[in-house]
Amino acid sequence: MSRTAGRPRRGPRPGEDTRGRIVEAARQEFARAGYDAASLRGIARVAGVDPALVHHYFDGKGALFAEAVVALSLPYTPQQIVDRVVVGPREEVGRRVVGAFLGVWDAQGEAFAALVRSLASTEEVARGVQEFLAEEVFGRVARTLDPDAGAGELRLRVGLAAAQMMGLALARYVVRVPGVVDATPEQLVERVGPVLQGYVLPRG
Amino acid sequence: MSRTAGRPRRGPRPGEDTRGRIVEAARQEFARAGYDAASLRGIARVAGVDPALVHHYFDGKGALFAEAVVALSLPYTPQQIVDRVVVGPREEVGRRVVGAFLGVWDAQGEAFAALVRSLASTEEVARGVQEFLAEEVFGRVARTLDPDAGAGELRLRVGLAAAQMMGLALARYVVRVPGVVDATPEQLVERVGPVLQGYVLPRG
Repeated sequence: MSRTAGRPRRGPRPGEDTRGRIVEAARQEFARAGYDAASLRGIARVAGVDPALVHHYFDGKGALFAEAVVALSLPYTPQQIVDRVVVGPREEVGRRVVGAFLGVWDAQGEAFAALVRSLASTEEVARGVQEFLAEEVFGRVARTLDPDAGAGELRLRVGLAAAQMMGLALARYVVRVPGVVDATPEQLVERVGPVLQGYVLPRG
Repeated sequence: MSRTAGRPRRGPRPGEDTRGRIVEAARQEFARAGYDAASLRGIARVAGVDPALVHHYFDGKGALFAEAVVALSLPYTPQQIVDRVVVGPREEVGRRVVGAFLGVWDAQGEAFAALVRSLASTEEVARGVQEFLAEEVFGRVARTLDPDAGAGELRLRVGLAAAQMMGLALARYVVRVPGVVDATPEQLVERVGPVLQGYVLPRG
């Protein structure tokens, strides 16, 4: 699998173009000004849309930020991620997930670090991102590959998977832990991949 | 092993009492006012010492914060941690480490969450904490149990262990990921313990 492949675009949907322009403008503005200083009005200006449209599509700055983080930090749409990681050997799901995330994160550099910092500092961002990760990404993967697991068990699994990936992002881009910063993506896939596998599919 | 045992005090050393009072005052002030608003002068006042003494013992606010975080987040002094986790079955080192950390963290509540947030937002704090964790805690454990591992390999192992524990702290106390918040300490020891074991002693 190539980690450097471009991000496939979603197919067109009504309003998708305007909505996508707003998310992209938000990503730029949050990376430039930080969460607190960025405004919905400023984002609307960068996107070239009426501020009312921002409110039409997004339930506040936190929701918009969460989606901008997600747009910046995920290689594909959630469904595409699920489609890709569930294809191929089941025992290598963890490696495929770690490799896909690292490829995108490493390519973002400092802008991604700024977003991870906001995840820790801003409660509404944290809630948005974690719900998205738990429900749309790890939850879908776990449910698809292990449909018989109970709800509480699934919640624990996806929570631990999210915790591992948040820790990896914090260590590699924000706190800059030397052993994790120096490691190649391949080394991290080798060591963290089986861990993620064990969290998401403990018996698989 | 009891996770709720009180924190053993270090033996007396010259200046230890003054230094310890400053760290305790710093812990209170950082928890009350946050990192940015807390001042070395205010910390000196709470400790009842001359501000010059704070500068004598600590190389700036970041260094003092790192030590205050550490004092709050570790069950014992580094050497005591090493002494304890290396005793007992080698294959359960990871469980003992996770259990010891969780016991202390869970008891701290919101004050600990505030400190984890500062770890993500303040670079000098991040550097101080990660150097401490890597060198004094996981580095000592790894070197003690596997003295033949090379320096680069050890750095990667302790970095990944630190990343896992930072992710667990972020998920349980700051981002509040439901599956991780709901889990009992025993459940987390059961699932995260073997992961930490694999990071620190991959062949052990």
